[in-house]
Amino acid sequence: MDLKESIRVIEDFPKDGISFKDVTTLLKNGEVFKETTDKLVEYLRDKNIDIVVGPEARGFLFGAPVAYALGVGFVPIRKEGKLPGETISVEYDLEYGTDIIEMHKDAIKPGQRVAIVDDLLATGGTVEAAVKLIEKAAGEVVSIDFVIELTDLKGKDKLKGYDVISLVQYNV
Amino acid sequence: MDLKESIRVIEDFPKDGISFKDVTTLLKNGEVFKETTDKLVEYLRDKNIDIVVGPEARGFLFGAPVAYALGVGFVPIRKEGKLPGETISVEYDLEYGTDIIEMHKDAIKPGQRVAIVDDLLATGGTVEAAVKLIEKAAGEVVSIDFVIELTDLKGKDKLKGYDVISLVQYNV
Repeated sequence: MDLKESIRVIEDFPKDGISFKDVTTLLKNGEVFKETTDKLVEYLRDKNIDIVVGPEARGFLFGAPVAYALGVGFVPIRKEGKLPGETISVEYDLEYGTDIIEMHKDAIKPGQRVAIVDDLLATGGTVEAAVKLIEKAAGEVVSIDFVIELTDLKGKDKLKGYDVISLVQYNV
Repeated sequence: MDLKESIRVIEDFPKDGISFKDVTTLLKNGEVFKETTDKLVEYLRDKNIDIVVGPEARGFLFGAPVAYALGVGFVPIRKEGKLPGETISVEYDLEYGTDIIEMHKDAIKPGQRVAIVDDLLATGGTVEAAVKLIEKAAGEVVSIDFVIELTDLKGKDKLKGYDVISLVQYNV
């Protein structure tokens, strides 16, 4: 099955010039959603993952089922102020300005083997911050797994030395 | 297993007087997360569900794995402006002011049998709006399933005539 056929491309969202990859058309198809999740699960199955981490909000859509299928826990990374417990945070650069992501301080135990799962790798700013957050908590980032990669944006360059995969690639 | 033991209660979040039920402590425990998801899946298994709908963002954490385990699609309900395609929307009352939730117009086919999955039933405002959204799209709301119910807030009163369950109940 070609997953690309199930991903809708919407031009000029959220702003002019962006060719948005819409995974909701993939998600609503039970067969394709299952196949997508299973591909990530199969890749991770032998890696002795202790916990899956996913960034808000689309990372939850794939990360939570992957964690469930692996039988491991899931840890959400959220925007500032959303998590109720004591958090650790990382600030990172956006095109204009900065953003902050947070994770619960007690979410990951030192030495736990972590997979980061997200829907899309673009410039890699968010996932680079997620890696820093996990390493701050002394977790080991074993694998970073995306449904989609926008290859021309070279997000992988920010993740050198890590195991990074994507199921589907687009030039833009 | 008593799921309550895995749910952390944080007082005065997000504001004074609120006793927040934190499901991240449940999610990070692989065994408990699996058991929670499986309980929802077992309840829904014989109901011929075509699609699972979950509201942003914590609804994704349980709704997506439930959909995966049932082998059906998942449809996200999001805050205004987050979904890239053509949407339908419902406005609903908050304690102060109003809020708007949206769903893709083509997310649900007329007559599809829908389960709404979310982490928590409080006053029921959001889920009542979600029901309206699904019925606007001519979907049939077959079941509404929560991990947690705050019984004193009487959210069930807003959902009369629907099949509503929760796995864990708190008075406040």
